[in-house]
Amino acid sequence: MPKYSIPKGFRDFPPEIMILRKKVLGIVEETFKKHGYDPIETPALEYWETLKGKYGEEAENKLLYRFKDPWSNRWYALRYDLTVPLARFLSHHAIPLPFRRYHISRVWRHENPQRGRYREFWQCDVDIVGSPYPEADAEIVNVLSEAIENIGLKNFKIKLNDRRILAGIFEETLSLRNAILAYRVIDKLDRIGFEGVRKELSKTGYSNKVVEKIIETISISGSPEKVLDEIEEMYGKNERVNEGIVHLKEMLDFLKYKDKTSIELSLVRGLDYYTGPIFEYVVEKPKIGSIAGGGRYDNLIEIYTGKHIPSTGGSIGVERVIDAGLELGIFKLLEKTYAKVYVLSLKHDKKTYLYALSVASMLRENGIPTHVDVMRRSEQAQRRYALKKGINIIVYVGPKEVSENKVTIYDRMRNLRKVVALEYMIDTIKEFLKNKDIT
Amino acid sequence: MPKYSIPKGFRDFPPEIMILRKKVLGIVEETFKKHGYDPIETPALEYWETLKGKYGEEAENKLLYRFKDPWSNRWYALRYDLTVPLARFLSHHAIPLPFRRYHISRVWRHENPQRGRYREFWQCDVDIVGSPYPEADAEIVNVLSEAIENIGLKNFKIKLNDRRILAGIFEETLSLRNAILAYRVIDKLDRIGFEGVRKELSKTGYSNKVVEKIIETISISGSPEKVLDEIEEMYGKNERVNEGIVHLKEMLDFLKYKDKTSIELSLVRGLDYYTGPIFEYVVEKPKIGSIAGGGRYDNLIEIYTGKHIPSTGGSIGVERVIDAGLELGIFKLLEKTYAKVYVLSLKHDKKTYLYALSVASMLRENGIPTHVDVMRRSEQAQRRYALKKGINIIVYVGPKEVSENKVTIYDRMRNLRKVVALEYMIDTIKEFLKNKDIT
Repeated sequence: MPKYSIPKGFRDFPPEIMILRKKVLGIVEETFKKHGYDPIETPALEYWETLKGKYGEEAENKLLYRFKDPWSNRWYALRYDLTVPLARFLSHHAIPLPFRRYHISRVWRHENPQRGRYREFWQCDVDIVGSPYPEADAEIVNVLSEAIENIGLKNFKIKLNDRRILAGIFEETLSLRNAILAYRVIDKLDRIGFEGVRKELSKTGYSNKVVEKIIETISISGSPEKVLDEIEEMYGKNERVNEGIVHLKEMLDFLKYKDKTSIELSLVRGLDYYTGPIFEYVVEKPKIGSIAGGGRYDNLIEIYTGKHIPSTGGSIGVERVIDAGLELGIFKLLEKTYAKVYVLSLKHDKKTYLYALSVASMLRENGIPTHVDVMRRSEQAQRRYALKKGINIIVYVGPKEVSENKVTIYDRMRNLRKVVALEYMIDTIKEFLKNKDIT
Repeated sequence: MPKYSIPKGFRDFPPEIMILRKKVLGIVEETFKKHGYDPIETPALEYWETLKGKYGEEAENKLLYRFKDPWSNRWYALRYDLTVPLARFLSHHAIPLPFRRYHISRVWRHENPQRGRYREFWQCDVDIVGSPYPEADAEIVNVLSEAIENIGLKNFKIKLNDRRILAGIFEETLSLRNAILAYRVIDKLDRIGFEGVRKELSKTGYSNKVVEKIIETISISGSPEKVLDEIEEMYGKNERVNEGIVHLKEMLDFLKYKDKTSIELSLVRGLDYYTGPIFEYVVEKPKIGSIAGGGRYDNLIEIYTGKHIPSTGGSIGVERVIDAGLELGIFKLLEKTYAKVYVLSLKHDKKTYLYALSVASMLRENGIPTHVDVMRRSEQAQRRYALKKGINIIVYVGPKEVSENKVTIYDRMRNLRKVVALEYMIDTIKEFLKNKDIT
C-alpha cells in the first residue's frame, strides 16, 4: 500500500494513458483549429465572487471547491467549468467579435467519484462569442460532431432542445411555480427513469395533474421536423416557445449530422446560464452518460463586461470520450513509450559510451526518439528493459562497432540482425520502422 | 475597469500569446520525446502531508497554497513543483527503470509577483528515475540545453555545482552550525551581491572569520577543469567533496555544451531535496534570473516508495523563457489566429450560406483553418474583421458564385483577385499561402 495516497476522485496518468490522451486531444484540437478557433488559457483559480451565482445552488454548495487564501483573506475557487472564466476573460481583453475560442484544460468539481466522473477532469470547449444567430449554434454542434467523429466515436446521437421552449411551456403555459425545481428533477431522468421523476415531482409539491402534464411534455421526443411541428401545434401560440422553434428550425438547416439529431423535451441541462438552444451528445454503448454538451448563453457575458454579447458554445468531456473509446475497443493502450530505438552499450567505458551518444544523437537528429543506457547494465538486462518498454529496434554498440565505425541493428519483430556502416544506419532503421506493420 | 478582477499574480493568455506558448512548448516537447522521455500527468492537488517537509521552511510557510477541503476536513495543497508529485506517483505505479519522464504543466507558488515571476506558472520537467550515474545527470543537462537552443535562445550559460562539495566544505571542513541558513543567504547572491551576502551572514551570527571564509569559497568559479582542480587542492581530502568532484568530472565527459558551462560554488539552489550535482541556466540578457535548473535527488523517492531510487532531473521555466525570447526579439506576437482563410458570404440567405459552408468544409478538409461569417454582416464589415484578425485570404461567395459554382479569391497581401471554379480553389489558395513570404 502506498504510504502517501492520492486525493479521492483525482488521478495520475502514466505514460501509456498520456500517450493516448495526447493523441485524442490532438485530434480534437486540430478539428477546432480548422474551424477557425483559437486557444486561450485562464487561471485555475478565480476569486469566489467571480464564480458565485452562475451554476445553480446545488453546484455552488456541494461541488465547487472554494477556500480562503491564507495570505489575503480573500476567497478563491477552483474553476468549475471553462465558460464562466471565458466570460470573465472578456472583461479584461478587447478581442474582435465574433471570437471563436477553444480551451482545453482541467476543471474541478466535488462529484461522487464513479465511472466517467472524477473530481478533476479535462474539458474541450469551443465557443463563438458575439453571434445571436442560429448558424453559430449550428457551427458549434458541427465542430463538436466532427471532433467526436474524428476521434473514432461514430455512434453518437445528438439530443437537442431550447430553453425558451422549456420556459414557454413550463413557466408560462403551465404556470409552474419554481420551475427550476422541476428542471432539476427532470435532469435526473436518465438516472431515475420516468417513474422516478413522477415520484420526485409529486414530493416537490406539484399536483397530480401538473405532474402528469410535465411527464407528458418531457415524453415528447423524436426526429426534429416531427417534434417541432408537434410542439408548434400544442404550444406555438406562446411567444417564447415560438422563438425557440424558429431558432431551432434555422439551426437545423445548417446541421451536418441531422440524421443523428433528435429533439427531446426532457433535455434541460444543469447549468443556470443557458438561454437558447441546448444540446447533448450521448453514445448508446457504453452507458456512460453524455460525452459532450452545450448551449447558448446570451446573458452571461454581460454580467462581466456590461455589454450584451450573445454567445454559444459546447464542451467535450475528455474522460468520458476516452473511457467510452477504450471500452468500445476504438482505443488501445498499446504504446508505453514514444521511443522507437534503444542504443545498447556493450561496454561502459568512456570511449564506447561517447560513441553510443553520437549514434543516439544521429537518430534523434533524424526525428527518431531514442533511448540510451544510463544504468551500466549487462547486455541481457538492457535487452530485457527494451522488451518491457516495447522498443523493438536495438542498436548495439561495442568495441568492435567503435573501431569499425559501424553499428549492429536488431529488429526484434522480424528477428533480423544487420551490421551496417554508420552512414547507412538511418536509412536502415527508417526502412525497419516503415515495415513494422507488415510483420 | 473590469468589475471582476483576476487574482493577483495570475494571468490570462489571449490567443496571440497562446499561439506563441504552444509553439515554444511544442519545440520543448519534441526535444524531450526525441531523447526517449514520455509524458505523465498528476493532480493539481495533493494531500498536504505529501508535500510537507520537502521544500524548506520558508517555501512551506510562505509560498505553498494549502487549504482545508470543505467536505472531508483534510488538508490539500496546490502542487509547488512537479518533482515531489513524480515521487508520490512512483509509489502508485510500477514502471521499469530507468524511467525517463517529462511533465509540462502548471504549479503554484505564492510569490511576490514581478517580471518573470507569477503565482501560477508552467514548468517543463525532465527526469531520469533510477540511475545513480553521472551520465544520467549529463543527459538531463544535454536535453535541457538542446530544448533551450531549439527554442532559439542561444546565449545561455550553465552554472554547475554539487551539493556534496557544498556540504563537505561548509558542514564538514568549515564546521558551520546551521549550514542551511548560510545556503539561504548565498542563494540571494544574484539579487543582493557579495556585500549583501556578507552583511546578512554577519547578522545570522557567524564570526567575521567564518563569513570571510564563506565569501572566499563562494567566489570560486570558472571553467570546470580549472575550478575542479582548485577545489581538489583546497578541500580534496574531504570525502564528500571528493565524491562530488569525481561525479562532476565524469559528468563533464558527456556534456554537449561544456564551453557554456562553468562551476560556481555560489550556486546552492533553493530546494531541500538535492543530494548531488545541481545546475542552473542563465541568460546574460535580459536580467530575468535563471530560465532552467535542476539537480540530483537520490533520497526523495524513497520517502514515498520505501525503495532507494536515485534520480536526477531538471526543469525549464516557461514564463521566463518566453519573456526573455520576447524581449530579445527572438519571438514575436504576430499571429492572432491560426485561421488562414475567411469565407465571406455576400448574402445571408440559406442558399448562399449553405454554399459558403461547403466552401469552408472543402478548405478545412484540405487542412486550411477557415472562418465563415456568423454575424450576417455587410461585405465591408466582414472585410474589416478579417483585416483585424490578420487573415489575408478572403473567399467571396455570392449569388453569382453560387450559380456558376465558382469562388472569388482575394489575396490582400498582393492585392490580387481571382475568380476560379470550385475545383481549382484549393490549388489556388495553397499557391497563395505558399507565396505569402515573397511579398
